[in-house]
Amino acid sequence: MTVTASRLAIPGWIELSQATDARGILTSIESRLDIPFEPKRVFFITDAAGDRGNHAHRFTNQLIVSAAGEFAVDVSTGGDWTTYDMVHRNRALFLPPMSWVRLHDFSSDAVCLVLADTSYADAVYIRDWEEFVRETALKNS
Amino acid sequence: MTVTASRLAIPGWIELSQATDARGILTSIESRLDIPFEPKRVFFITDAAGDRGNHAHRFTNQLIVSAAGEFAVDVSTGGDWTTYDMVHRNRALFLPPMSWVRLHDFSSDAVCLVLADTSYADAVYIRDWEEFVRETALKNS
Repeated sequence: MTVTASRLAIPGWIELSQATDARGILTSIESRLDIPFEPKRVFFITDAAGDRGNHAHRFTNQLIVSAAGEFAVDVSTGGDWTTYDMVHRNRALFLPPMSWVRLHDFSSDAVCLVLADTSYADAVYIRDWEEFVRETALKNS
Repeated sequence: MTVTASRLAIPGWIELSQATDARGILTSIESRLDIPFEPKRVFFITDAAGDRGNHAHRFTNQLIVSAAGEFAVDVSTGGDWTTYDMVHRNRALFLPPMSWVRLHDFSSDAVCLVLADTSYADAVYIRDWEEFVRETALKNS
């Protein structure tokens, strides 16, 4: 699947390709083919407990994948909330800039894999919900 | 840690930074900071059994990380073999082009995460050990 420009606009699922045989399951993510960006930072969260996130990125595109176990991601772009159940290895969640996220309900074996197109130093976080809502309301007005 | 040019030459460990708190452990990999390349393809292997790999990449730089569980990687650049035990989340294995790899002894919960700087279409594999040895001998002569 080649990602089109329209995929840049809103949060949603991206189906990843998988190669399955007797040796295991290989799930792959290719820049500019599966995802509409080039990762500058790749990180993964293990031994997760409680909530994580509770912020938005001002400029960063992200892809979230459950590489093992399960968790859930609540997403809002300023209005309604959508909950994404991160259960399938090949069903990744794409988040454009200005997506508020909350990650929760991690299984003990969960591996939350994230690809981001900014370095940590260059990422700009919004950690105040009211500020986030004000900014998204202005953008959409 | 900033990766220097000398890291490009030979296979070896790269220590990754980790942020650990009550919410879990976040292990991160930043392009051009932790690793000497920009990933074009990210893939992960789950439910692995038996051997994988048994090839070399002619042009591709790779980073292999154990995001969960354990496995081992045998590496040769044409001469001796080194076995790397992939046990720690923050100890990644860097492989420059022309590294023959064999992955084995996966635990049932292993997640083998790989970052590569070529797309699958652009990767050139050498799958014949004798050919690989001939080429590395020529290069080193």
